[in-house]
Amino acid sequence: MKFVKIEEILDGKHTDKKVAIRGWVYRERKQKKVSFFLIRDDSGIIQTTIKLDSKDWENSQELSIEASVQIEGVVKKDDRAPGGYEIKTEKLEIVGLAERFPITKDKSEEFLRDVRHLWIRSRKMTNILKVRSAVFEAIHQFYKKKGYSEIQSPSFTKSACEGGSTLFEVDYFGEKAYLSQSWQLYAEAMIFSIPKIYCIAPSFRAEKSRTIRHLAEYWHHEMETAWMNFDELLKFQEEFIVFIANYVADKCKKELEELERNVDELKNLKVPFKRMTYEEAIKKLGKKWGHDLTDAEERKLVKQIGEPVFITHFPREMKAFYMQPDSENPKTVLAADLLIPGVGETTGGSERIDNAKTLEESLKIFKLNKKDYKWYMDLRKFGSIPHSGFGLGVERLVMWFAGAEHIMDTIPFPRTMNRLEP
Amino acid sequence: MKFVKIEEILDGKHTDKKVAIRGWVYRERKQKKVSFFLIRDDSGIIQTTIKLDSKDWENSQELSIEASVQIEGVVKKDDRAPGGYEIKTEKLEIVGLAERFPITKDKSEEFLRDVRHLWIRSRKMTNILKVRSAVFEAIHQFYKKKGYSEIQSPSFTKSACEGGSTLFEVDYFGEKAYLSQSWQLYAEAMIFSIPKIYCIAPSFRAEKSRTIRHLAEYWHHEMETAWMNFDELLKFQEEFIVFIANYVADKCKKELEELERNVDELKNLKVPFKRMTYEEAIKKLGKKWGHDLTDAEERKLVKQIGEPVFITHFPREMKAFYMQPDSENPKTVLAADLLIPGVGETTGGSERIDNAKTLEESLKIFKLNKKDYKWYMDLRKFGSIPHSGFGLGVERLVMWFAGAEHIMDTIPFPRTMNRLEP
Repeated sequence: MKFVKIEEILDGKHTDKKVAIRGWVYRERKQKKVSFFLIRDDSGIIQTTIKLDSKDWENSQELSIEASVQIEGVVKKDDRAPGGYEIKTEKLEIVGLAERFPITKDKSEEFLRDVRHLWIRSRKMTNILKVRSAVFEAIHQFYKKKGYSEIQSPSFTKSACEGGSTLFEVDYFGEKAYLSQSWQLYAEAMIFSIPKIYCIAPSFRAEKSRTIRHLAEYWHHEMETAWMNFDELLKFQEEFIVFIANYVADKCKKELEELERNVDELKNLKVPFKRMTYEEAIKKLGKKWGHDLTDAEERKLVKQIGEPVFITHFPREMKAFYMQPDSENPKTVLAADLLIPGVGETTGGSERIDNAKTLEESLKIFKLNKKDYKWYMDLRKFGSIPHSGFGLGVERLVMWFAGAEHIMDTIPFPRTMNRLEP
Repeated sequence: MKFVKIEEILDGKHTDKKVAIRGWVYRERKQKKVSFFLIRDDSGIIQTTIKLDSKDWENSQELSIEASVQIEGVVKKDDRAPGGYEIKTEKLEIVGLAERFPITKDKSEEFLRDVRHLWIRSRKMTNILKVRSAVFEAIHQFYKKKGYSEIQSPSFTKSACEGGSTLFEVDYFGEKAYLSQSWQLYAEAMIFSIPKIYCIAPSFRAEKSRTIRHLAEYWHHEMETAWMNFDELLKFQEEFIVFIANYVADKCKKELEELERNVDELKNLKVPFKRMTYEEAIKKLGKKWGHDLTDAEERKLVKQIGEPVFITHFPREMKAFYMQPDSENPKTVLAADLLIPGVGETTGGSERIDNAKTLEESLKIFKLNKKDYKWYMDLRKFGSIPHSGFGLGVERLVMWFAGAEHIMDTIPFPRTMNRLEP
C-alpha cells in the first residue's frame, strides 16, 4: 500500500477508507481492552486505536514514545479524537522500538539544546524548520523569476580586512586565513561577468555576544546588481520582502497557525515602506548627530512607527568603507537598513562607490591598508559602473515569519560562543 | 530608453530598430573616419560603429578594452560583422574608462588566476558561471518538485571524527573546532523531523592534492531521505542526474555551444544506468579483492564502459562506517559510486545503518571513539528507520556539463593548497 501523509487524513481526504501511514509514536495511552497511539509525521498527528482482539495487540504494548511504526487501518471521523479523525488499526508493523525518551515536559531550554538531535523532532522545531525551508525556496524562486544567477564567493580569505576582532582564524596549510563574513567584495567583481547575482551561504562571526539575535554561524543572503542605483535598490528590497512574506504565508499556512503566528500580518505588508533618514531617526530618539543606533533603539523606533521602515543616509564614518557618499550631502552615504517591527534590523544595503578617487579617500578615512584592496580597487579602474546590493541574515527572516523567540530556534544545530555541539 | 540584452539583437529581434545597450568594450579598431567597437554583456557580443561626423566621435576615441558604455543606435543586419548584426551609434555615453587591460592573448593559466577578479569577465568564465548557476537552479527545482525541504547543518564541529588529516582546524572562542566535510550525520537526525531533505553548502578539505579535480573548498550537494532503501536511492539518483543534465542543456544551450560542449550527450542520457559490483569492477581491472580503486582506474573503467555506471557493494572496510552491510553478503555494504565518462566519480551514496548493534560493530571496525558518536547512536535508539542518501561535489557536475578542463575553472574564486587569493 502507498503511504499517505497524516495531514491528508486530517483534511478529510480519506474518511471511511483504508490507509497506510508511517511515523513515530507521539503520545500513548494503554488501557485494558484498547490502546490509543497518537502517531506523528512531519505533516501532522493522528490518533490510532488498537483492540485487545487484534493479532498485533501484544506487539503494540511494546510501543513507547518515539517508536517508529507503519500502520494500516480504516479512517473514521471521531470528534473525541484530537484533529477529529482516528484510524482503527488493522495491521501494525513496528519498525524501530524506542528506549525511554529523555524529553519530557518542562525541560529547560538548555537541556533541549543539549539533546537537539532529538528535540528537533518536536512539533515546534518541525514547523520552524519548514518555515525556514520555505524562506530558502522563496528566495530561490524570487531570483529565478528576476533572471538572477546564484553565484558564490570563497569562505577562506587571506587578509583580515574589516572587523578583524570578529573573524575566525583558520590554519590554512600552515598559513593564517580567516573565515569570510560577506561575499560582497567578490560579488562586485562578478557583476562585470554576470550583472544580476545572488547567494545564500554560511557566514561566520566570532562575536562574543549572548543576545537572542546572534549566532556564530548564520546563513547570509546577499545580492549584487550592476547598473542599479540606490532608489532602485530600495524598491527591489520592498518587492523581495513582500514576495518572501507572501510565499511563506501561503506555503506554510498550517505551520504558522500551529506556531500561533498571525499570518495576516505577513499577507498584508504594504509598499512602499516608510523611509526615514538617519537624521530624522536620531531626532525622534532625542540623540545627537554621530550617535550610533543600538539594536534596542532600532527596535524601539520601529515599534513606535508600527510598520517596516528604511533608515537611510547614515554618516559616512558609521557605515562600511565601500558605500557611495550622497552627492547632495557627502557626509552621508547612500545606505539603508530595513527595520521590521518585533525584529529590528533585517536587511542592510547600499549603493557602492564606483570610482577610484572616492574609494581611495574611503580607505584613508577608515584607516584601511591600500595593499589589501588592490584587486578591489581594480574594479574601479577598468570600466566601472554604478551598482548596489543588500544582505540579510536568513535566520532573522525566519524569526520574524515563525515568530520564534530566540534565533537559536531558527537553525537546526545552532553554534554560539557557548555551544559547539551536538 | 530601456536597455536590451545583446543576445536579443543577435537573435534578430530588433533589426532596423533603434535600441539602447550597455556593457563593456570587448575589442576595438579605430580607423580614420570610422571606429568599430565590439561591446559585450553577459549574453553576447555585438559590433557597434561610430563615424567621424558624430558628436560623440571625440569621446569614442578614449575608449579602450573593458571601458563601460551605454550606446543608442539602429540595428542593421551586416554579414561582415561578427554575429551578423551591427549597431550604428547615434549616442555614446562613457560610463567608466579603462586603464590598459592587463589580460592579453597567451597569458598563462597561473597569471589568469592571479587576476581572477578581471579574468572572470572572459567569455569562457561568464559561460561556465552561467552553467554553474543553472546547475544550482536545477537542483533547487528538482527538489521543489519532489517536495523536499532545504535544510543545513553546522560548518563547525567539535570532534575530528572521520578523515582527521584533511580537516581544517579553527580557533573557536579559544577552543579547537573543525570545519565540516559533510552534513550527513546531522541530516540523519533531521529526517526524523522532516523526512525528505537536501542541502547545498560549502565543504572544506585540507587535502594536499594538486590534481585537476580537487579544491580546498567546494560546494557540496547532499540529500537524505527517510524510509528510502538502496534500490530506491539508485533510481532517485538516475532521475536526478537526467533532470539536471536536461535542465542545464535547455537553459544554457548557447553557453554550452560557445564552450564547444556537445549538448546532445547531456540530452540523451538513458536510464537505468549500468550497475556493476565492486567485485566485477576489480575483475575487469585485473585487481584483487580489497584493492581500492584509484581515481585513474575509475576513469579508465567508465571510459571502457562508455556510459554512466554505478559501482556497488564495496567491501565494508573500504567505505564509511555508517553504511549498511548487505544482508546477503555482509562483508559488503549497500553503497554505490556513480562514475561518469570523462569525469570519474560523480556521486557517492548508501543506505545507512539503522540499528544500534551494527553501528557499534562498525565503530569498532573503524576504530572510532564511541564517545564522539553518542548522539549519532541515539538516532538508532529512538524509533530508528531505514534511510539512504547521497552526495556530490557541485563543481564535478559543472566540469562535466561545461566540459571544463580544470576544476578551478568551475568556481568563481578557487581555493587550493597554493591559492588563497584573490
